[in-house]
Amino acid sequence: MTDPRRPRIGITLGDPAGIGPEVARKALADEGVRALADFAVFGCLAAWEEPAGAAAASVTAASPLAQWDGRVEGVTLVEVPCPAAGAIPRGRPSAPGGEASIAFILAAVDAVQRGRIDAIVTGPISKEAVRLAGYPWPGHTELLAEQFAAARVAMMFAGGPLRVALVTTHVALAEAIRSLSAERIVEVMHLADAALKEGFGLAVPRLGVCGLNPHAGEAGQFGFEEREIIAPAIGRAKAEGVCAFGPLAPDTAFYQALRGRFDLVVAMYHDQGLIAVKTVAFEDSVNVTLGLPVVRTSVDHGTAYDIAGRGEADPRSMKAAIRMAATMVARRQGAER
Amino acid sequence: MTDPRRPRIGITLGDPAGIGPEVARKALADEGVRALADFAVFGCLAAWEEPAGAAAASVTAASPLAQWDGRVEGVTLVEVPCPAAGAIPRGRPSAPGGEASIAFILAAVDAVQRGRIDAIVTGPISKEAVRLAGYPWPGHTELLAEQFAAARVAMMFAGGPLRVALVTTHVALAEAIRSLSAERIVEVMHLADAALKEGFGLAVPRLGVCGLNPHAGEAGQFGFEEREIIAPAIGRAKAEGVCAFGPLAPDTAFYQALRGRFDLVVAMYHDQGLIAVKTVAFEDSVNVTLGLPVVRTSVDHGTAYDIAGRGEADPRSMKAAIRMAATMVARRQGAER
Repeated sequence: MTDPRRPRIGITLGDPAGIGPEVARKALADEGVRALADFAVFGCLAAWEEPAGAAAASVTAASPLAQWDGRVEGVTLVEVPCPAAGAIPRGRPSAPGGEASIAFILAAVDAVQRGRIDAIVTGPISKEAVRLAGYPWPGHTELLAEQFAAARVAMMFAGGPLRVALVTTHVALAEAIRSLSAERIVEVMHLADAALKEGFGLAVPRLGVCGLNPHAGEAGQFGFEEREIIAPAIGRAKAEGVCAFGPLAPDTAFYQALRGRFDLVVAMYHDQGLIAVKTVAFEDSVNVTLGLPVVRTSVDHGTAYDIAGRGEADPRSMKAAIRMAATMVARRQGAER
Repeated sequence: MTDPRRPRIGITLGDPAGIGPEVARKALADEGVRALADFAVFGCLAAWEEPAGAAAASVTAASPLAQWDGRVEGVTLVEVPCPAAGAIPRGRPSAPGGEASIAFILAAVDAVQRGRIDAIVTGPISKEAVRLAGYPWPGHTELLAEQFAAARVAMMFAGGPLRVALVTTHVALAEAIRSLSAERIVEVMHLADAALKEGFGLAVPRLGVCGLNPHAGEAGQFGFEEREIIAPAIGRAKAEGVCAFGPLAPDTAFYQALRGRFDLVVAMYHDQGLIAVKTVAFEDSVNVTLGLPVVRTSVDHGTAYDIAGRGEADPRSMKAAIRMAATMVARRQGAER
């Protein structure tokens, strides 16, 4: 019998041509990881069995998805129908690879919607392969937001003791500056506040909010965005009940967070947050999507096509993503009881 | 007798209203620091003696500068004529404080030009106080560049194992992007290359050069600057003999440097470099000016008016700045012998 309180985590293998299957296998070969939850792996047997040199986790195969009864115990491989699987070249982006990547994710979404799993942990996909397969989504976040009809989502990264939420993401830096708005900053602050309460058990999360410019503009000497956009957004979010500090000088905000002053830092642009996270916790940083009705975490690395199939891939980010998903599910369930 | 090879380091106290005098006193109270060099402290006795609770370093007072014979042994306080010293209010920017800050620096410049000291280590000054005193320089770097007629200078920061040189500094982020030029990037690469050879003893320094945009633009998808400005600059510097890599994804460049892949990272804007340096080495990071005919290092913090006079200031950055200056002088002298 499955313990109803035991988290049920779905893992998508990512692009079969990359290191996703290998890091999933290696992570699930770790007893400590398997003890955290029951796992449903969404993929195809070819991708699962192939990686050379990877430690194996023995699986119960449930194949294909249509016949899967939804039971998740230990590690169950949910075979996702994927006609093109045999045509996927290893180590580079291809249309069949993109096709399979998306099929795995959609199967996991379906399992969430049927109440069969509590969280999705995603392996790395390739933007290029997904584009070659003719799909419009630039990444997991957009695809999942659409599938779950989530109007507001944000990317959070957690690495070691640092947590960071991003106001803007994969756009040119000049465009990130142009698109900065108080509305979006307030939205991300609320998403982060809610996630830290529900998923991390913090009663009153303390958010540190970065400025955009050096020294947060040094009282208006370098740029107007702190005064006209960021400070008003912080004021609004505080009036709406969020505990927040800022605009902070970006170069010292993360140090202060590391020293325990903030539970999360809100970054205005991709590298403002990710330089800090990846410099202090490269190997085990995790990407979390805020704003979905389901827990979703992800490895914080790409397909690494160049080392695919060699058995050299490091599973630490996948293990960290699984651990974080398990913790977040447990907290959410605890809050519901 | 002074050992002719022993570094002679001049320390400027910075704004007397801030923590500069206190961190200088505390640093020089450390025997290990005093063993590194002979020190000439440029300041006024009132500022030197005042800080409450600070461990004292005993000094030989040489007063005023006009009568100083230029001997530097142990710690010599070179009294800089500073009529307004009595009028400096503690803990806030003022015209007399700015006046004194600049007088101390100009006295140290004079001592360098007379061959009496080999390096300048500067305490923190306040842009606001300097402006109130009617001076045009926004900071040490511009003042020193002008005094030494240095046409090309750049800021380098070193913290723990990380070294970073900045292409742009204290301007709004949008302006930093607009002003990015291949010429300036090549210039900073050459300045960094020369400094690592002369001051740090590296035969072939390896520079990692950041892109501007997330993922260094991901092959032109987010921004054009990597392709049109940064990559050509790297190509030119390499053709001119600099060992360089990039444009690198900014979020992983510093991690790679920490792992030993690069000796220095060239950052396109202030926070790109300083988020990394201050997050990993807040307490002991040092600011070095590249391109001057003299070694110049500085504390990497401000006047901290809010804690001035309380004896709470942390001298680690000052100690690190002194250590780095001593090392750089020794390397330069070694190279000359």
